[in-house]
Amino acid sequence: MKTLLLSKDDVRQLISMSEVIGAVEDAYKAFNSDQVIQPGYIGIDLPDPRGEIDFKVGYCKAGELISMKASSGGFVDNPTAYGVPSGMASIILFDGRSGALICVMDGSLILGLRTGASGAVSVKALARKNASTVASIGTGNQARMQIRAVSEIINIEEIYAWDSNPEAVLQYQADIQAEFGIPVTVSRSKKDAVTRADILITTTRGKGSLVEADWVRPGTHIVAIGTDQRGKQELDPEIFRNAKVVVDSMMQCTEKGETWHPIDREIIAKEDIHGEIGEILLGQKPGRESDDEITIFDSTGMAIQDNTTAGRIYRNAVANGVGTFFSFFGE
Amino acid sequence: MKTLLLSKDDVRQLISMSEVIGAVEDAYKAFNSDQVIQPGYIGIDLPDPRGEIDFKVGYCKAGELISMKASSGGFVDNPTAYGVPSGMASIILFDGRSGALICVMDGSLILGLRTGASGAVSVKALARKNASTVASIGTGNQARMQIRAVSEIINIEEIYAWDSNPEAVLQYQADIQAEFGIPVTVSRSKKDAVTRADILITTTRGKGSLVEADWVRPGTHIVAIGTDQRGKQELDPEIFRNAKVVVDSMMQCTEKGETWHPIDREIIAKEDIHGEIGEILLGQKPGRESDDEITIFDSTGMAIQDNTTAGRIYRNAVANGVGTFFSFFGE
Repeated sequence: MKTLLLSKDDVRQLISMSEVIGAVEDAYKAFNSDQVIQPGYIGIDLPDPRGEIDFKVGYCKAGELISMKASSGGFVDNPTAYGVPSGMASIILFDGRSGALICVMDGSLILGLRTGASGAVSVKALARKNASTVASIGTGNQARMQIRAVSEIINIEEIYAWDSNPEAVLQYQADIQAEFGIPVTVSRSKKDAVTRADILITTTRGKGSLVEADWVRPGTHIVAIGTDQRGKQELDPEIFRNAKVVVDSMMQCTEKGETWHPIDREIIAKEDIHGEIGEILLGQKPGRESDDEITIFDSTGMAIQDNTTAGRIYRNAVANGVGTFFSFFGE
Repeated sequence: MKTLLLSKDDVRQLISMSEVIGAVEDAYKAFNSDQVIQPGYIGIDLPDPRGEIDFKVGYCKAGELISMKASSGGFVDNPTAYGVPSGMASIILFDGRSGALICVMDGSLILGLRTGASGAVSVKALARKNASTVASIGTGNQARMQIRAVSEIINIEEIYAWDSNPEAVLQYQADIQAEFGIPVTVSRSKKDAVTRADILITTTRGKGSLVEADWVRPGTHIVAIGTDQRGKQELDPEIFRNAKVVVDSMMQCTEKGETWHPIDREIIAKEDIHGEIGEILLGQKPGRESDDEITIFDSTGMAIQDNTTAGRIYRNAVANGVGTFFSFFGE
């Protein structure tokens, strides 16, 4: 029995964004087909200036894999003190048939990739067919990942970008134009960006000012990425009043996603949520039903997305002979 | 940044039972000194004939290590279908200062070792100084491990062994006499073994008949190993009525240890429990106070024992240049 070891460089070469999008679709569908066991996560919080390590476990029946992702974040002294990033991640995979440890891989690319892919899956299911402009509120790493993923689904003609940090948005403009050849307009205000967009993507980590309700045009699809815990918020909760609200996980989004805010303010009730994205992908519920609807996809992120993404990477590695085998247990 | 990989063979050569006993003492003391974060565990239960995989996380401030143990059990078809045991385990270690993944090791030896050591630590703290005979109720792998550990603490002159399976007890007798040179008497009844013992060790997994209260002599120290979840039981709860009861974790033992039974039957109250073993090791509470006391140590097992044991193994490996380094993340 041997365990496959995959470094960050191995992982990078083993998966394309289009495959991650497929893996995330698989995850959402499995989640709504009784194929998934996904218990709550365990976290260890360390004293400042250190951060936390979270452990998330998932089992997907279709792939017969059990995944455990350990991800750290907020170790702010790491770059200077130890020459490593402030957050790192590892994923280990067990064969669901035997419980055997079959793979240990670096996980630092996977969170970004699968979160980007979640926006793209929602665009496929919920955006207008002719959507071609994107407002990017927030211009960090995940904002770029969203463009990388969404441009696999639609032809983005223009991006309107806004960030609270003017230098960050200029760097984003230069990078996106160079990497994807998509023209990026640096918007003077958040409103300016939002009013021009067919698709609004928020990746600000939810600690700043909100996107206001009357900026959002009919027909807009909103990808709400930045809120995955209490205390974060990116959208005026009034936006939810007449929108079609789709979540990745009903439980997570109503407890700690963007959707928690309008429920807390009693702008919508849980029953007003249209459904989970897996239900739409499985054809159990309709996606967009008119060109005028405002659709919102609230993504909090699920362990099962890591599971299916890491599973594709593992299978690609085995198929292509990439990686290093190690025998932890006998021969 | 490199990660150390340790195989089962590496682990075997890297730690002695006396060091595991030291590590388990460290764990118990740390647990009672606000040095430990040890959240509840996550489990994935798979359909029959498969078993479960459990994930247990612990942080120990003294060693600045975060440990995650994944252990599987109950995959009964494994030996025939896949040529691997029905249960396996892996331990991964993170540096608490940076969150970096520093070690992945086979964990299949550690549960047995650290559970054996827990009995030995309790013998040191609670058995009579002149204790020299052991009743071994249950004669499987953990029964042997207990002997291996306890014989580091006292000179065992005679073992009285009983098992519901007569072949198992004969094999145990042969193995123990060969490995340790300790004479083993195969007892005709459980009572016969118990009435002769200074130290009574129960490792039956708690699905059979009970050790009865009037068999237990004054001065006996009882090591109750086999009950770590509801539905298991090894001791007549009446034994607890006048005994000094010491637990590894108050929370675990009163919820799912041997101690749950007398509490449930209202034979004792939680307040009657003398304390946690770490409190005794730290000198915060007395251990045995007379030669006539019956003492009970209820061991349910804690993640922090894996943490300190794996930590010793890791440090020994680094010190002795054992193991294989792999770079998951950059150079």
